[in-house]
Amino acid sequence: MIYFTDNDIDRLIEDDLPAGDMTTFLLDLAGKKGSISLIARNEMIACCTEEAVRLYKKVGLEIGFFVPSGTRMQPGEKLIEAHGDAAAIHIIWRTGSAMIEFASGIAGRTHQLLTAARKENPSISVAGTRKHPPFVKKMALKALMAGGGVPHRTGLSDTILIFREHLLFTGGYEQLPDVIRSLKEKMKERKIVVEAHNMEEALIAANSGADVIQMDKSQQEIFSDCAGKCRAINPNICMIAAGAINDTNAAIYAKAGADVLVTSWMYFAPPADIKAEIVPVM
Amino acid sequence: MIYFTDNDIDRLIEDDLPAGDMTTFLLDLAGKKGSISLIARNEMIACCTEEAVRLYKKVGLEIGFFVPSGTRMQPGEKLIEAHGDAAAIHIIWRTGSAMIEFASGIAGRTHQLLTAARKENPSISVAGTRKHPPFVKKMALKALMAGGGVPHRTGLSDTILIFREHLLFTGGYEQLPDVIRSLKEKMKERKIVVEAHNMEEALIAANSGADVIQMDKSQQEIFSDCAGKCRAINPNICMIAAGAINDTNAAIYAKAGADVLVTSWMYFAPPADIKAEIVPVM
Amino acid sequence: MIYFTDNDIDRLIEDDLPAGDMTTFLLDLAGKKGSISLIARNEMIACCTEEAVRLYKKVGLEIGFFVPSGTRMQPGEKLIEAHGDAAAIHIIWRTGSAMIEFASGIAGRTHQLLTAARKENPSISVAGTRKHPPFVKKMALKALMAGGGVPHRTGLSDTILIFREHLLFTGGYEQLPDVIRSLKEKMKERKIVVEAHNMEEALIAANSGADVIQMDKSQQEIFSDCAGKCRAINPNICMIAAGAINDTNAAIYAKAGADVLVTSWMYFAPPADIKAEIVPVM
Amino acid sequence: MIYFTDNDIDRLIEDDLPAGDMTTFLLDLAGKKGSISLIARNEMIACCTEEAVRLYKKVGLEIGFFVPSGTRMQPGEKLIEAHGDAAAIHIIWRTGSAMIEFASGIAGRTHQLLTAARKENPSISVAGTRKHPPFVKKMALKALMAGGGVPHRTGLSDTILIFREHLLFTGGYEQLPDVIRSLKEKMKERKIVVEAHNMEEALIAANSGADVIQMDKSQQEIFSDCAGKCRAINPNICMIAAGAINDTNAAIYAKAGADVLVTSWMYFAPPADIKAEIVPVM
Amino acid sequence: MIYFTDNDIDRLIEDDLPAGDMTTFLLDLAGKKGSISLIARNEMIACCTEEAVRLYKKVGLEIGFFVPSGTRMQPGEKLIEAHGDAAAIHIIWRTGSAMIEFASGIAGRTHQLLTAARKENPSISVAGTRKHPPFVKKMALKALMAGGGVPHRTGLSDTILIFREHLLFTGGYEQLPDVIRSLKEKMKERKIVVEAHNMEEALIAANSGADVIQMDKSQQEIFSDCAGKCRAINPNICMIAAGAINDTNAAIYAKAGADVLVTSWMYFAPPADIKAEIVPVM
Amino acid sequence: MIYFTDNDIDRLIEDDLPAGDMTTFLLDLAGKKGSISLIARNEMIACCTEEAVRLYKKVGLEIGFFVPSGTRMQPGEKLIEAHGDAAAIHIIWRTGSAMIEFASGIAGRTHQLLTAARKENPSISVAGTRKHPPFVKKMALKALMAGGGVPHRTGLSDTILIFREHLLFTGGYEQLPDVIRSLKEKMKERKIVVEAHNMEEALIAANSGADVIQMDKSQQEIFSDCAGKCRAINPNICMIAAGAINDTNAAIYAKAGADVLVTSWMYFAPPADIKAEIVPVM
Repeated sequence: MIYFTDNDIDRLIEDDLPAGDMTTFLLDLAGKKGSISLIARNEMIACCTEEAVRLYKKVGLEIGFFVPSGTRMQPGEKLIEAHGDAAAIHIIWRTGSAMIEFASGIAGRTHQLLTAARKENPSISVAGTRKHPPFVKKMALKALMAGGGVPHRTGLSDTILIFREHLLFTGGYEQLPDVIRSLKEKMKERKIVVEAHNMEEALIAANSGADVIQMDKSQQEIFSDCAGKCRAINPNICMIAAGAINDTNAAIYAKAGADVLVTSWMYFAPPADIKAEIVPVM
Repeated sequence: MIYFTDNDIDRLIEDDLPAGDMTTFLLDLAGKKGSISLIARNEMIACCTEEAVRLYKKVGLEIGFFVPSGTRMQPGEKLIEAHGDAAAIHIIWRTGSAMIEFASGIAGRTHQLLTAARKENPSISVAGTRKHPPFVKKMALKALMAGGGVPHRTGLSDTILIFREHLLFTGGYEQLPDVIRSLKEKMKERKIVVEAHNMEEALIAANSGADVIQMDKSQQEIFSDCAGKCRAINPNICMIAAGAINDTNAAIYAKAGADVLVTSWMYFAPPADIKAEIVPVM
Repeated sequence: MIYFTDNDIDRLIEDDLPAGDMTTFLLDLAGKKGSISLIARNEMIACCTEEAVRLYKKVGLEIGFFVPSGTRMQPGEKLIEAHGDAAAIHIIWRTGSAMIEFASGIAGRTHQLLTAARKENPSISVAGTRKHPPFVKKMALKALMAGGGVPHRTGLSDTILIFREHLLFTGGYEQLPDVIRSLKEKMKERKIVVEAHNMEEALIAANSGADVIQMDKSQQEIFSDCAGKCRAINPNICMIAAGAINDTNAAIYAKAGADVLVTSWMYFAPPADIKAEIVPVM
Repeated sequence: MIYFTDNDIDRLIEDDLPAGDMTTFLLDLAGKKGSISLIARNEMIACCTEEAVRLYKKVGLEIGFFVPSGTRMQPGEKLIEAHGDAAAIHIIWRTGSAMIEFASGIAGRTHQLLTAARKENPSISVAGTRKHPPFVKKMALKALMAGGGVPHRTGLSDTILIFREHLLFTGGYEQLPDVIRSLKEKMKERKIVVEAHNMEEALIAANSGADVIQMDKSQQEIFSDCAGKCRAINPNICMIAAGAINDTNAAIYAKAGADVLVTSWMYFAPPADIKAEIVPVM
Repeated sequence: MIYFTDNDIDRLIEDDLPAGDMTTFLLDLAGKKGSISLIARNEMIACCTEEAVRLYKKVGLEIGFFVPSGTRMQPGEKLIEAHGDAAAIHIIWRTGSAMIEFASGIAGRTHQLLTAARKENPSISVAGTRKHPPFVKKMALKALMAGGGVPHRTGLSDTILIFREHLLFTGGYEQLPDVIRSLKEKMKERKIVVEAHNMEEALIAANSGADVIQMDKSQQEIFSDCAGKCRAINPNICMIAAGAINDTNAAIYAKAGADVLVTSWMYFAPPADIKAEIVPVM
Repeated sequence: MIYFTDNDIDRLIEDDLPAGDMTTFLLDLAGKKGSISLIARNEMIACCTEEAVRLYKKVGLEIGFFVPSGTRMQPGEKLIEAHGDAAAIHIIWRTGSAMIEFASGIAGRTHQLLTAARKENPSISVAGTRKHPPFVKKMALKALMAGGGVPHRTGLSDTILIFREHLLFTGGYEQLPDVIRSLKEKMKERKIVVEAHNMEEALIAANSGADVIQMDKSQQEIFSDCAGKCRAINPNICMIAAGAINDTNAAIYAKAGADVLVTSWMYFAPPADIKAEIVPVM
């Protein structure tokens, strides 16, 4: 459960409406009554309908119906329906649609990736990075999870992930055994993830006690080879494939032995396509 | 000039770092010195480097160099360079890169669309809608403009755009002449834009005194036909092609007589690809 | 419809109450019940009653009645009525009244100006500038519109308005034809407004294709003369009178041929006078 | 010293510029250099120049000169001077001017009131209420103090002020002796102010131990009479005249024996008149 | 009545949940129903239950019951009870408990101090300083007042309190008569509080017309002596004991003649101990 | 590195100063120059001096010197020194001191706990919970880490911690093997922590594959027994002692075999004692 503050929802409205809706004001729509329904044009996984409900309520609409995030939609199925003041409907129409389309697009792509990868490895995970469009972390994470993915890391506060760029300041990969020993003494409740770019780095990391090896942009055969050798060192080690993972290579890495696919590819999905039906109500 | 508040910049950092950088804390990097350079991997149009500068400064880094937004970059060219505390570098590394990659991706796609369209009509404009990912309006607009585009509308407060859904509450297209007459009396400083879906609606709008006709998802021949007939009514009328405009059809609509291409396609560009070089400094 | 965020409403309360209501706390009023009614002392146009409703609800009061913004009130008529905890009533009493008084004062002055001007020109518009007291843009705009006015520009993002101070950087009024040609090619969906201070500047602007001429502080005869000559160039041109417009000269400029009166005079109206009746409820 | 947060200053810019400055963007002013000077057109008391300095710096301008808040200005004297990017100058031009004009208008009116009142009573105070335009408390207070006034109360948290509307819940004026006895036991560090509307209420309050009597809308003779009788009861009592105090009656109440004049009249002053000179710099 | 904004409540949730509740998400608890009850483990004074109610409602729980702030609780008594989605319950469980425990701890200690002091002086006040943990002013004040205390000063805006460190810039204690005379002329609605560290300073302050003398860290005998001599000068003077006041010395200072005990000791109370009962509901 | 936003720092000032510093305003201190030094009265570990520097700079002071967070101070040693406007010094004096005192108090207690525990087990960790005073998470975490502690969990987003209250919705401890199997398949990059209250629960958890067992309020002998049996199942398992851990029992649990002590005891430390020296500067 991702929590959106009142300010999160208000910001969406205010961004689109810093100084009133000039068109509905001049058309004098306030006081007229109507309804709005959002309808899937294609197959999609609904996401952020709950936030659309909050958006709609903020301007005084009453909600007739909505499907929860995660629902698989068929073309023509209704995502949300509400009614109330015509001016209010026009104020949130596009903002609400754009939000659901964005989030549902990410959810759909996540599911697509997961489906592709699980054909080769039914227990593989798809994890989303923190490299999403700026300012949308909560929505991106909600969509990722609605599509069956999990966060790789939601930011710098939650996991320990050692990049080569960290090691440049601590003596390089050769000092990794000491580095990891020290880390494990300080922080016993979190796994140690180490990024590796080749077999050598991966083996050092595995031998040093890393719990997770994140192979960056390694080719299929190398990945497969690394995974095998690392697991020989530590059968419980987790092998991550990262770097340009998308729908064309997910199955390949799954087959090569990845436990987790880490990517930001889903965050740049084209938005789902939603139709809005607005009608006057007597 | 788009203005980002201190809070805008702070939010990016805090989103990624709600409770400290666990890895650099445990590795005890604070106090060590390093530098960071961001380098274009491919041709790209730089965008939001100014905001990266502010981000870097927020954590105490000193800026050595940066290119302004809008700069065309060749592979291998440097976007920004800074130095300071190694822990500070790790804190803003990915957030800064992700921001520039996102914005530069949009700028590049805007330029691509404009270039395609201008081959057919050198004075055509490419205008971005407000249907961008949630929460990123200012960054999306900055990128749009860095790529040569202009805002279609930045939200509901700036332009008068009459959709079919407005007219449902005011008597339909047949009442459009009265509606526009009334609008023009009330608001004399802004143009009246009317959305049309077919020849009939377009002609009513043109005859009613609309300043701009926005044809939604009309086919090339129909668009061309409409444009001709509307210009016969009002030679100064502006004809907009909207609805699923992208790199495959921009030139087509340009040739069909569009004055402006209105789209959100650029906002969902894949991010530009940037390499970060982090090195210790003695 | 102007949208006020929850934070907008909360800020009003918190500004007045950063650390509790010392008087009602020490008098131990919490738990006692009462009602509050706001009543017009003079004729007025009600404004921001909807925001007062939200303010009242924020502290737990129940609303019995309120008139919508824009309602003409006679002396003694009730604007809003609510009941609930006596401590809550005292918390929002003055903040709610001050807000309605401020907004209603602006609405009333706008209406007064419009009435004066329309005696000479029934289709003239009264437009409010962005030069209102700091921090109150949304409330000032809501009041302006409740009084029959329209925004001139709500800020720098919505309209294109070329001041002499812009032209100092682009070659002066003599380069205006090129400047406007370029602007019109870039931005086809918005009108071009040009400020002029005398006949010469006005004619250059009109000949250059400006859609709107904003005459700053020109005298009645000069305005009338300019308007005539500009309309001879472009019969659809819009002529704005700006600069120190108020109730003493609105009719004069209306008679002189102004299409729009642009002013900030209404924003500094004395507040409307409202009486609060607070009574205990058993 | 009133403290404005970074967010306070940023809000002013963002309010005026939610999505960029369309005019300077389309005119391509960025990169050109200029200077801006604000100059008093009339005699005035400068206020909020420090906040203008912060506003100017936020967009990158360099400050050449500014006078501190409280400075008496003669016509033609310079308030502030800055230089830098022409686009930045246009972004803050009107917001900075409007802020100084608003605050200086209040400072001037406060001084005017004080001057009038002190002719009759050189030790009288002018105190501003909390009934200022919404959202501008800090700026209104700064201006009040720059003009020689003091806050009456800055909100509900700082003083104990008993209105008739409080007493309705505690047994009316007849119970005032008990009420004040209890208040004085609970809160020994603050004075007790009681509002009175006539002689009877004033005498009850004075006899009950009120430290301050605030006479609401009482006529000159009644005020004078009350003041005399209350001082006979308690020579240290403070007598406040409140309710519709302005420049026409300040001296009258001063003569009638008021220690303090409490009013909101200064907050609705017309703004001071400031000229901006913007020039290109080579 | 202390007012918490929506943002205050949201911040508590977001602080604990920047990117979702990983455990309940992975356990797939959403959609299951449960209830939560908070129960006092020991005697305590409940505080901030109203804010817990708002917290609970923010995530969609329905409130069955709660006791108001200020209620004396016996071990085993219920503070609040709510039911709804199991994932929502887990999200606010600890945040709600921690808030009540913190505030109730302060309320309890305040009451403890007051009880101790009133045994010696039934009309003594206990006043809390502004030296509480950062960021919690509103909650600390609410708890202070729930426990029977009053604010000493809620910040720098509400009272006039002259420290030795102020006098260093105005000529020292010897200039105090002039300083106070000037202050009293400027600001007639507030008392003048002067900090003193010894008999000499206290007597200067009392002779200069200070309304309140705040003795900092003076010993019992000295305090008693000062109080006597100051009251001989001004029988209405208020004598404050400040500096390291706690449960071990409250009665001592009460006996020594203090009117008010000023301390921050209550703010660092150990939290009250509350048990949470969470159960599934069919 | 914990990141404090500009808004974090501004909030501290504004909380204490919603409407100006009444005392320094009335004493007319602005314009006079002075310096402020904060000095440790006792041994302490400095914390949040960096944030004090930012606070001081916000009001225009210049920093002469400061010690970084984590520095061990001896009585009489200087923490920070700054100079500038006397009014500015008074504005931040207490807020800055209170912040350092609060954070340093936590840092000191953390260190005290760690020192006690490490006498028995040199590699034990002290981890702080998220049960700190409301609103101070970042400051509490910074202080915890400055004192040698680590976060247990910074909130719900970073770790997987299964409470008995979770299991009530998933079939109880008997279903734990299935629950953990499912969790480990979904989320491979984080450890699974399970709370246990007795031997039975601990053994189920260890046998189910939990990476960490958090024993809540178990007695020393039971803890020791559990630790031994769990390690027999999984030699890499991490054993946490939680529930009322403080300076009286830290060594006991260290001796009983705890790898980590989890507590909130340090967050309620009495503040460190700091002396401020303010002097005029000519």
